[in-house]
Amino acid sequence: MKKVVALVHEIFEDLELMYPVIRIKEGGIQVVIAGEEKEAVYHGKHGYPCKSAEAFRDINPSEFDGVLIPGGFAPDKFRRIPEVLHLVREMDKQKKIIAFICHGGWVPISARILKGKKATGTTAIKDDLENAGAIWQDSPLVIDGHLISSRTPEDLPVFGKAIVEALS
Amino acid sequence: MKKVVALVHEIFEDLELMYPVIRIKEGGIQVVIAGEEKEAVYHGKHGYPCKSAEAFRDINPSEFDGVLIPGGFAPDKFRRIPEVLHLVREMDKQKKIIAFICHGGWVPISARILKGKKATGTTAIKDDLENAGAIWQDSPLVIDGHLISSRTPEDLPVFGKAIVEALS
Repeated sequence: MKKVVALVHEIFEDLELMYPVIRIKEGGIQVVIAGEEKEAVYHGKHGYPCKSAEAFRDINPSEFDGVLIPGGFAPDKFRRIPEVLHLVREMDKQKKIIAFICHGGWVPISARILKGKKATGTTAIKDDLENAGAIWQDSPLVIDGHLISSRTPEDLPVFGKAIVEALS
Repeated sequence: MKKVVALVHEIFEDLELMYPVIRIKEGGIQVVIAGEEKEAVYHGKHGYPCKSAEAFRDINPSEFDGVLIPGGFAPDKFRRIPEVLHLVREMDKQKKIIAFICHGGWVPISARILKGKKATGTTAIKDDLENAGAIWQDSPLVIDGHLISSRTPEDLPVFGKAIVEALS
């Protein structure tokens, strides 16, 4: 069974985390939600609660087939956490799926894996993506190898499907 | 193109409305969100905002292939609104898809369409479903003809998929 780690922290964009999590489960793929602490409850930008099953420090990248990075302002936290950057860099080296949406792109920026790669995100971070060497595209879905990105919650129908297809 | 009407009112269960809405769109099916007022913003139990595109009174059941009834406490409002009950009864007569989850079952109860039908929902309304003549089943997904029901947000992976499959 394939396995994805989904990242959570305070002020995640509620649907950008929860929609892909449920959609990935529908695809018969296991999802492990990881936060700074194990079994802690974090709240979305609009208030939806989400409990972490594991702590970032206990996630072994080799045991996972992909990582899901939601938007909201949680990525502003994720990008400062060495274990998260290590996880994303290892997933990149191993060509595992790295899916990010909206402000989620801040994390691969800080993991320094975007140089020369096509990617998208909210227009708010277009400059950050380009300054990190990414080729920004204004498209609901951008796939460059094992990198899958979308812009906003409006893009969730294609974002969720693409993650499941890439893992199937 | 197939078309589904999704019902919204205050205190809808955020994911029980939004997950199927996005999943149905992924399936290439149009979704029209209808509320007591047109272009009004309603908030989920946890705070997620959702804007209605149409008012219940302007929905013509013949133009739709299915109706989605989320849980939360919105169904406590839906069941008192004659236009909603009319919509659900017409969809039932025309054997269109009627999908309800959690407390959503209150609406088909008040539309009086459940006698002898298999259905599920949150355990909180098991008695109400049975008193309305439904055959309650403790299962993540119950399908009886054009009626599709699930219990809680935990069941969303199978609920969303079932709606899309029934409409495809």
